[in-house]
Amino acid sequence: MKSTLKRKTGISPTASRIAQASLQLFNQQGERNVTTNHIARHLAMSTGNLYYHFSSKEDIIQALYQSYGDRMAWLLTEADARRHSLEELVVVLDAVLQHQWDYRFLLQSSASLFPFNAQLRASYQKFDVEQIAVGIESLFLKLREDGLFEGSVATIRMLAVHFHLLQAAWIAHPVRAGQSAATEQVVEDGRRQLLAFLRPHIAPAWQAAFERVASAPACLPALLALSGRLAGSERATLCC
Amino acid sequence: MKSTLKRKTGISPTASRIAQASLQLFNQQGERNVTTNHIARHLAMSTGNLYYHFSSKEDIIQALYQSYGDRMAWLLTEADARRHSLEELVVVLDAVLQHQWDYRFLLQSSASLFPFNAQLRASYQKFDVEQIAVGIESLFLKLREDGLFEGSVATIRMLAVHFHLLQAAWIAHPVRAGQSAATEQVVEDGRRQLLAFLRPHIAPAWQAAFERVASAPACLPALLALSGRLAGSERATLCC
Repeated sequence: MKSTLKRKTGISPTASRIAQASLQLFNQQGERNVTTNHIARHLAMSTGNLYYHFSSKEDIIQALYQSYGDRMAWLLTEADARRHSLEELVVVLDAVLQHQWDYRFLLQSSASLFPFNAQLRASYQKFDVEQIAVGIESLFLKLREDGLFEGSVATIRMLAVHFHLLQAAWIAHPVRAGQSAATEQVVEDGRRQLLAFLRPHIAPAWQAAFERVASAPACLPALLALSGRLAGSERATLCC
Repeated sequence: MKSTLKRKTGISPTASRIAQASLQLFNQQGERNVTTNHIARHLAMSTGNLYYHFSSKEDIIQALYQSYGDRMAWLLTEADARRHSLEELVVVLDAVLQHQWDYRFLLQSSASLFPFNAQLRASYQKFDVEQIAVGIESLFLKLREDGLFEGSVATIRMLAVHFHLLQAAWIAHPVRAGQSAATEQVVEDGRRQLLAFLRPHIAPAWQAAFERVASAPACLPALLALSGRLAGSERATLCC
């Protein structure tokens, strides 16, 4: 409980370092294969020190889940703010895929972690179902009102559900999960797949613009800026 | 290696009983929470006896994966044989969803098991990617030639990939996985979702027939027969 309290009042630099190292090890080696001992050893830290910051491995996963979720929620509000430009919407989509790839162990492990951990299941229910699924549905219904999608409200609602499932399935796809594909390739593949999935629902008036955006390569500088990965000096070079 | 050899020459009744009990416990309690000790205790069997039949828990999972895969491959050939009747195709779809629900722990756990188990990852690659994905694509391309689907070959190929991902995602969806929903509801939901997903790709000439089939309730007797769950005497009452 100690660390939950700590997180509420702001995560300490050491806790943040532990969380980042755990994320890297979970992604690389599979969350199942990584214990708190491995994490401590990787950081040249005593296990006791690690346990001062997190009460268990599950507690670390919970913290990572929280930061994953916070950023996903932020990206959804970005998508909503940029929804009048297809180009900008696709940049957000790339950023979402990049973010999911960065936290891929969560998408791979969560189903097997749930029967094991009621707190994580509850967070997932609250976050993924009540917040993200609702957010995607709301965005899609607005895009329908804006004239981008055509179809009944019921059809667009179902489109949102499928988009949500496919987006996670694409990144978490078990064979892909076992690969160490270059991120750019994963983002490009995911974007191409998801746009192909949306294509039959694009209203005729938007189809030409949609095809232009769908065939353009990922705008890496814009994506990196949105991912918060560019240093200040690099931001000036943004051009897509 | 002993048990692999045994399986090749036919699984023994005791090994089959162990596999069935494991499947039930993995589905109910989460595969992570179930050890070989739990399985042996559940069967009132010594752990030594269990290890005579399977060298490890992973070995049991491998055997379950094999029986899951064999039946999925069989259902795909059934779908191909029945592809000239929408009604029968949907019965096969229901049977596939039922089968995935029966082995749901595999769909939930496999991504987290893969970094852990190279043999299971190799089976998955061989079976799910080389066999099932290829089978679905081949079926969808035939349905396109039959006139059911409209769209380019490239579009229908991508439709097959998305169908494959969604079908697994729907059953493995983590929140659903934590529920103990009645099977009928899972099958109905999955069928409704997957048909809605296919709807925009149905050729105009087939749309009326498609809507009739999509709005009909699951034909439980036909489904049970295909699932091999009806005793001989009950098969006579088949009527849908």
